[in-house]
Amino acid sequence: MTLPRPLIDRAIEAAFAEDLGLSGDITTDACIPADATSKTVIAARKPGTIAGLDLARAAFEYLSTETNTNFQIEDGARVTKGGVIARIEGPSRAILTAERIALNYLGRLSGIATMTAALVDAVSHTEAQIACTRKTTPGLRAFEKHAVKCGGGKNHRFGLFDAVMIKDNHIIAAGGINAALAAVRTHVGHTVKIEIEIDRLDQLEAALTGGADIILLDNMSTDELREAVRLTKGRARLEASGNVTLETVAGIAETGVDTISSGALTHSAPNLDLGLDFLT
Amino acid sequence: MTLPRPLIDRAIEAAFAEDLGLSGDITTDACIPADATSKTVIAARKPGTIAGLDLARAAFEYLSTETNTNFQIEDGARVTKGGVIARIEGPSRAILTAERIALNYLGRLSGIATMTAALVDAVSHTEAQIACTRKTTPGLRAFEKHAVKCGGGKNHRFGLFDAVMIKDNHIIAAGGINAALAAVRTHVGHTVKIEIEIDRLDQLEAALTGGADIILLDNMSTDELREAVRLTKGRARLEASGNVTLETVAGIAETGVDTISSGALTHSAPNLDLGLDFLT
Amino acid sequence: MTLPRPLIDRAIEAAFAEDLGLSGDITTDACIPADATSKTVIAARKPGTIAGLDLARAAFEYLSTETNTNFQIEDGARVTKGGVIARIEGPSRAILTAERIALNYLGRLSGIATMTAALVDAVSHTEAQIACTRKTTPGLRAFEKHAVKCGGGKNHRFGLFDAVMIKDNHIIAAGGINAALAAVRTHVGHTVKIEIEIDRLDQLEAALTGGADIILLDNMSTDELREAVRLTKGRARLEASGNVTLETVAGIAETGVDTISSGALTHSAPNLDLGLDFLT
Amino acid sequence: MTLPRPLIDRAIEAAFAEDLGLSGDITTDACIPADATSKTVIAARKPGTIAGLDLARAAFEYLSTETNTNFQIEDGARVTKGGVIARIEGPSRAILTAERIALNYLGRLSGIATMTAALVDAVSHTEAQIACTRKTTPGLRAFEKHAVKCGGGKNHRFGLFDAVMIKDNHIIAAGGINAALAAVRTHVGHTVKIEIEIDRLDQLEAALTGGADIILLDNMSTDELREAVRLTKGRARLEASGNVTLETVAGIAETGVDTISSGALTHSAPNLDLGLDFLT
Amino acid sequence: MTLPRPLIDRAIEAAFAEDLGLSGDITTDACIPADATSKTVIAARKPGTIAGLDLARAAFEYLSTETNTNFQIEDGARVTKGGVIARIEGPSRAILTAERIALNYLGRLSGIATMTAALVDAVSHTEAQIACTRKTTPGLRAFEKHAVKCGGGKNHRFGLFDAVMIKDNHIIAAGGINAALAAVRTHVGHTVKIEIEIDRLDQLEAALTGGADIILLDNMSTDELREAVRLTKGRARLEASGNVTLETVAGIAETGVDTISSGALTHSAPNLDLGLDFLT
Amino acid sequence: MTLPRPLIDRAIEAAFAEDLGLSGDITTDACIPADATSKTVIAARKPGTIAGLDLARAAFEYLSTETNTNFQIEDGARVTKGGVIARIEGPSRAILTAERIALNYLGRLSGIATMTAALVDAVSHTEAQIACTRKTTPGLRAFEKHAVKCGGGKNHRFGLFDAVMIKDNHIIAAGGINAALAAVRTHVGHTVKIEIEIDRLDQLEAALTGGADIILLDNMSTDELREAVRLTKGRARLEASGNVTLETVAGIAETGVDTISSGALTHSAPNLDLGLDFLT
Repeated sequence: MTLPRPLIDRAIEAAFAEDLGLSGDITTDACIPADATSKTVIAARKPGTIAGLDLARAAFEYLSTETNTNFQIEDGARVTKGGVIARIEGPSRAILTAERIALNYLGRLSGIATMTAALVDAVSHTEAQIACTRKTTPGLRAFEKHAVKCGGGKNHRFGLFDAVMIKDNHIIAAGGINAALAAVRTHVGHTVKIEIEIDRLDQLEAALTGGADIILLDNMSTDELREAVRLTKGRARLEASGNVTLETVAGIAETGVDTISSGALTHSAPNLDLGLDFLT
Repeated sequence: MTLPRPLIDRAIEAAFAEDLGLSGDITTDACIPADATSKTVIAARKPGTIAGLDLARAAFEYLSTETNTNFQIEDGARVTKGGVIARIEGPSRAILTAERIALNYLGRLSGIATMTAALVDAVSHTEAQIACTRKTTPGLRAFEKHAVKCGGGKNHRFGLFDAVMIKDNHIIAAGGINAALAAVRTHVGHTVKIEIEIDRLDQLEAALTGGADIILLDNMSTDELREAVRLTKGRARLEASGNVTLETVAGIAETGVDTISSGALTHSAPNLDLGLDFLT
Repeated sequence: MTLPRPLIDRAIEAAFAEDLGLSGDITTDACIPADATSKTVIAARKPGTIAGLDLARAAFEYLSTETNTNFQIEDGARVTKGGVIARIEGPSRAILTAERIALNYLGRLSGIATMTAALVDAVSHTEAQIACTRKTTPGLRAFEKHAVKCGGGKNHRFGLFDAVMIKDNHIIAAGGINAALAAVRTHVGHTVKIEIEIDRLDQLEAALTGGADIILLDNMSTDELREAVRLTKGRARLEASGNVTLETVAGIAETGVDTISSGALTHSAPNLDLGLDFLT
Repeated sequence: MTLPRPLIDRAIEAAFAEDLGLSGDITTDACIPADATSKTVIAARKPGTIAGLDLARAAFEYLSTETNTNFQIEDGARVTKGGVIARIEGPSRAILTAERIALNYLGRLSGIATMTAALVDAVSHTEAQIACTRKTTPGLRAFEKHAVKCGGGKNHRFGLFDAVMIKDNHIIAAGGINAALAAVRTHVGHTVKIEIEIDRLDQLEAALTGGADIILLDNMSTDELREAVRLTKGRARLEASGNVTLETVAGIAETGVDTISSGALTHSAPNLDLGLDFLT
Repeated sequence: MTLPRPLIDRAIEAAFAEDLGLSGDITTDACIPADATSKTVIAARKPGTIAGLDLARAAFEYLSTETNTNFQIEDGARVTKGGVIARIEGPSRAILTAERIALNYLGRLSGIATMTAALVDAVSHTEAQIACTRKTTPGLRAFEKHAVKCGGGKNHRFGLFDAVMIKDNHIIAAGGINAALAAVRTHVGHTVKIEIEIDRLDQLEAALTGGADIILLDNMSTDELREAVRLTKGRARLEASGNVTLETVAGIAETGVDTISSGALTHSAPNLDLGLDFLT
Repeated sequence: MTLPRPLIDRAIEAAFAEDLGLSGDITTDACIPADATSKTVIAARKPGTIAGLDLARAAFEYLSTETNTNFQIEDGARVTKGGVIARIEGPSRAILTAERIALNYLGRLSGIATMTAALVDAVSHTEAQIACTRKTTPGLRAFEKHAVKCGGGKNHRFGLFDAVMIKDNHIIAAGGINAALAAVRTHVGHTVKIEIEIDRLDQLEAALTGGADIILLDNMSTDELREAVRLTKGRARLEASGNVTLETVAGIAETGVDTISSGALTHSAPNLDLGLDFLT
C-alpha cells in the first residue's frame, strides 16, 4: 500500500500552491513568531478507519525540515472517537499553515476507508470482496483507491488502460458479445484481464464461452445473481454492481458473487471528522 | 462564475492522463470503429442543482474537435429527475472515453451545488447567506467553490492568502485579540479583509473595538448568536459556524447572523446521480 | 513576509533550466576542479534596501547541499555602499554557476525595495501608505510585491481574484456606479473588498453611497484630492494614483489620502547594484 | 526573431494563472455581460521601440477564439507618442481580463527595446554593435533578449551553455589564461565560441595566443580600449563592458571595439508607457 | 492503437522546448522568408514497418495551423525502399524547424516496429506471440510499446503497476513460490494478472498450483521449454525470454510456448532510415 | 561533464511516474517486507564504456534517503565483461523498484558511449574528432550528448538555437551561399558559430569567402574530402558526414578533416548489457 512518490510530491505541492497563492498564510505570518514551536495531536472526532497518513506527513513536513510527524497508528487502522492518530511537533508556523491541507486529505480518504470498512464488515460472513470503481475525484484516483484498500476493499481497474471493460455500447458497436471479446483479445496483451458487463442472464453464456475473465452483472436482482453463480460454475469471476448499500450488500454477497463494486465508496463517502489540537 | 482557463486546461489534461495511462482506452479502441459517431444526452437521475458544465464540455471536446456539446441548461440551474442537461454529438470513441471524466466532475460538483441549494432554500426567509470553507478536496478548490456559488451560496476566502482569519492559536501567540488584530493590520494591505474567530461572547467587544471586518462565532448556541447580533449593532459582519445541518440552519439564520458557513458543503456532499445515454 | 515555498521552488528550478540549458555551465565545468571550495561575500555596490534573500539562498544551495548561505542582514534592511549582505561558502562550482541567478533576483527585487523605500521616506511625515499595483513582471508578481513590502510599502490586490476593482469600462457596461457596485456585491463573497476608480469628484458621492470600501482617485490634482478627503469624511478608504514620483509624492500624501499607489515601483525600478566577491 | 512557441505558451498560461488565481476576474465577471464586444486600440503614450507583440497577441487571444488582434506595426518598429500599435476586437470580457498581462509584457519589453535603440543610435557612426548580457529577469531571458534585438542590438550568449566565458575565477582556478583556454577547448565541441574576460592590457597577448574567439575588456578606459584594438589587429573580436551609458557609449565605440555589452539594457530599462483604449 | 493525447501533447512540447531553446531555429529564421511555403514528402530510405505517424503529424502541425500532413499509409504498414509515407505541405519555416523532431520520433519507432515485424514473421508458422518488456527508453514507454504493436507484436505489462511479475528476489523474500503467489493475491485486485518468473523446471509445478496466470521461463533451453509446455497442459500461459534473436526465435516458438518476450525490441533496435524531401 | 540538475530531477520523476502509474510496484509491495535491506552490485555483462551514472544514482536514491550508491568507476571509464560499476545498498524495496529505471538509462547511455569509443579508437592515429548530431531521442538529448562525450566524442550543436547550420533549403531560399551566410551573420550574435553544409566541391570557395566558421562536407568521397582539405588551407573547420561506419571512419579521418559526425551514435547504438545482482 505504498503510494507512488511522484504522485505524493505533485499533490502536496499543488495543494500548497492552491492554498498559499501569491502571498502565503498572511494570518500566521503576522501573528506567530518565526521561532515558536508547538506540540500537536491529530485525533478522531468520530470512530472510523484511517487512510492518507503519508499525505498528511508530507504536508506537515513540506514547510520545515524540523517538523516531526509521529504516527500512532498505520493506514488501515480503526480508531475510536477521540483516538489519537498522530503527534506532530515542530515550528508552529509550519504546522498551522499545513493543518488544513493535511486534514483535508486525511478526512476525505478516511471517510472513504470508513465507508468501505462498513461494507466489508457487512459481507464478512461470505467470500465476497468489496471493490471500488472509476467514479473517483479527478486527479485523486490513486489516493482514493488506496483508501478503499485501507478499508479492506479491493481495487478495480485503475483506469481505462489496465483492464478491459466491455459495456453495452462496445457490444453493440463490435457486433455482439463474442465479437467484442474477440476484438479485445486481438487488441490487448497477455497480461490484461477482460471483463464484460451484462444486464440480462441470457447474455451470460456468450460471455463465458467468449472467454471473459470477469463478468459484471449490472443491476440484477439477488435471484438473478444467484442464478448467474449457479450457471457460471466457476468458469469466470462474477462481479455485482448497482444498488449497493449498507442495507443491501449482505444479501448480494450471499448470492455467491465474487466481487461487489460500489461507486459510492469514492464519490459519496462523507468526510471522517478529525481534528488537530495544540498541546502547547 | 467563469472558471479560470488555466485551471480547466490543467485539470482536464491531468484527468485524462490519470484515466488513459500509457495505453489509453483499450476497450474502446478495440471495439468501436474510428469513424463511428453517436448522439448522446446527459440527464439527471435525481433532482438537483447543476455545476461543472464547463469542465464537462472541456472533457468531451478534449479528444476530438468534431465533438459538439450543447448545454440545455446553465450552471446553477435546477433539474428534475430525468431532466436533460446536455446533448453531446461526435465521434463515439471520443465520447465514450471522456464519459467518466465528465460525469465524475459533473456529479461531484452538482452534488455540492445541490446540498448548497438545500441550505440556501432553508434560510431564504432571512437575510443570511450560506458560505463554504477551506475544507475542500485538495486541487479542486476553485471548482468546488464555484459549485457552492452555483447552488446559491457565497464563497468564503479562497485560501490562506486572500483574507485574514485569526483563530485561537493566532490570538494566543499574538498576545490577545487586540494584539492579533493590530499585527495583521500592519502586515496586510488595504484590500484585505480581517476576520477573527471567537467562541465566547466575552471576546466579542475586543474583536469589535480591534476593528475586525468579520467575526466568526464558532459553535455558539442560537441564544448566544442572537445576543452577539444584538451587541454588535452592525459594527461588523457576523458569521456563524459549527453544527450547521439542514435541520439547524434555519434556526441559526433566524438569529440575525449575516453568514453561515459549512465545511460539509464541500467535504461531505454526496454525488448527484447523472447519466449519459446513447441515443444512436 | 514568507514567500510561498512552491513559488520559490518552481522559480529557482526554472531559472536554472533557463541558464543551464542542455549542457550546463561549460566554462566552470572545464576550469574549476570539482572539489574546489570558496568563501564569498555579497556586498552592495550602492546604498539601498534589500529584498529577495530567500531566493538568493535557494539559488546558492540548489546545486550542492554543502553550500552554506549566511545572511548578515534580513529582507527589508537598508545597506550602505559596500555593506555586506551575505556570506556564501561551499563548492566553487556551485557558487559560480548560481551567482548570476542569485544576483539577478536580488538586484531586481532590491531595486524595487529601494525605490519603494524612497517613496515611503518621502511621505513619512503623513499617515499615507505607499502601495504597488498589478503592473508587475509576468510570473514574478509574488516576488515583486514582496519587495514592495521590504521597502516599507503595502501590497495592493495580488490579482484579478482577491479584490474588486471597478474601472470606467466596468461602470459603463454595468450601467453606472451604483449598478456596478450592486453587481459586484451580489457576485463576490463577504471576505472581498470592493474598490472603485473614479476620475472626477462628481462621481465620489455615488461611490460612497454605493458602499465602496476603497475609492481610487485617478490622476486628480492635489486640490481635488484634498476636496475628496474632505467630502469622504472617513466613509471609505481613499487611494490616489497617477503621476506619482519622488517629487510629487509628498504633496499627494499631504492631501490626506490613505494610500498612494504607483506602478513604477514594480515596472520601472532600476536594479540595485550588488556584487559577489570571492575571498578565497 | 521568432520566439519559440513552447516559451510563449508556458509564459502566457503562467501569467493568467498568476493573475486569475482560483476565482478569476471577479470584477469583470460581475459587471460585463458575457456577450458584450469591444473595439480597442493599443497606443504609445511616449515614443519608443516596440517589442513583445507576439506575447500580447497570445494574451488577448488566450481567453477567446473570437478575439482578433491586428498589429499596425511589427516588433522593432519605432512609434511616436500616440502612435497606434495594435487594434484588438472581440469579447469585452476577454479583452479586459487580458489587458494588464498584455501591457505588462509589451511595456517591459518595449522599454528594453527603447533603451537599446538609444544606445544603437548613439554608436551608429561606428561599426560597434550593442549587446546584452545574462543580467536578465529570471524566467524571461528569451523575451528580454528578443527585445534587445528589436531595439537593434545583438544577443550575447543565452546562458551558461551556449558559449564559453572565462572570468577571473576561472583563470585563477585553471592556472592562468593559457591553461583556462586549453581546458575549455578540450571540454567543448567545435561549434562553441570561446570568450575570455580580461581587465588589464598585459593579459591581452595571452588571450590572443591562447586562441580566444572573443576578448571581453572589462572596465577599461577608452585609452586602454584603443590600445587593445591596436594590439589585437583583428586576431579576435573585442568586446567592451563596464560603465556603458548613453553618455559614454559613443566614446567607447569610437575606440574601434567590435561589441559593447550592457547589463542595464535588461535589468534597468524603465517600462515604455503604453495604453489600451476602448473605442466602443 | 490510439496514443493518449496528454502523452503526445507533452512529448511534442518537450521536444520543441529541447530543440528550440531560448532563441529558436536561428538558421531558418534568418534564411527562410516567413511567407514561403513548401511541398515535401517523407519516404523510406530502407524497407521497414512504420510507427509513430501521430507524433510526426503533431510535430509538423505544432508551429503552424496552416500545415497539412497527409499520411499515405497508416501505422503498422510496411514500406519498401523509397516508399512514400507522408506528404506535408505548409509554411517552409514550420516544416524545416519540425523536420528533425518528426524524423527522430518516426525513425526510432519505425526501427522498433521493423525489428518486431522481423521476429513476428519468423514465428508466423506457430501460435507464439512476440512481446516487449519494460526495457524501454525512460519517458518513451507508451510510444515504444505502441511501435511494438505496429510491428505485429504484443505488449507486456506497461509498468510495475498493471500486472504482477514475481522474480527471484520476490520469491526469496516472500518465502517461496507459493507464499509469494499468495501474498500478491491478497494484495492486488481481481482485474490484475499474476506472472511468475522461474528458471528451473522443478519450480513449474509450484507456480501452477499456486495459481499463476502466466509463467515466465527465463533462459531455458528449447528442450526445457518443450518439457514445460508438456507439463503445463494449458493450465497457465507460458512465456519464454532470454537469448531471443532472429536466429533463435523460430526454434523457441516451435516449443509451443505462448509468448516470447524480448528486451532488444525496444532497447537495441536501430533507427529506420527515413528522409524528408522538399518538392518545391 | 556535469548534467544540469533540473534535467536530472525532471527525468527521474517522469521515469518513476511512468513506471509506477497510480498503484506503484504492486509485486514488491506484496512480497518484500518494508524493513528488508539489500546489498547489490551493478556489473557489465559485456565490455564497454560507461555513461549515465548520475541518472542511475538519482534513480536508486529517489525512493529512500537510506540508499547508498557507491560508484566504482566514473562516467567515461571502460569496463571489461564482469567489471563492477557500482555498489548499491539500502532498503530492498527502493532498490528493486528503481532497478529497471536505473538500468534503462545506464544501458542506453553506455551503449552510446561504447559505440562512440569504438569510432574514437578507430581514428586515434589522426587529429580527427568524432561528433554526434541532432538525431537523438526526443527528450533525452542532453543525456545522449553527454554519453557521446563519455565515449571520447565531441558534441555538435545541442539544438537549433546554439549554432547556425545552413542546409540546402536555406541556401536556395536565401538566394545562394553568400546570401545565406550574410543573412545569418546579420541575424545572430557574435558568440554564435556559423556552419554551412555543402555536397559539391564547387561550393567550397563560396563558403570560405562567405566567412563560414565550419563547413560540413556531406556524403563526399574520401578523394573529395582530401581535395577539400587541400583547398581550404585551414581557413575553416571541416566536418565530414554520411556513411560513417566502423569500417569507413579511419579512411575518412585520414583525409585530414577536423570532425566526423555520425547520427548513428545516438539513434542506433545498441544497449550495453548490464545487470544488477543481489549479494544479500
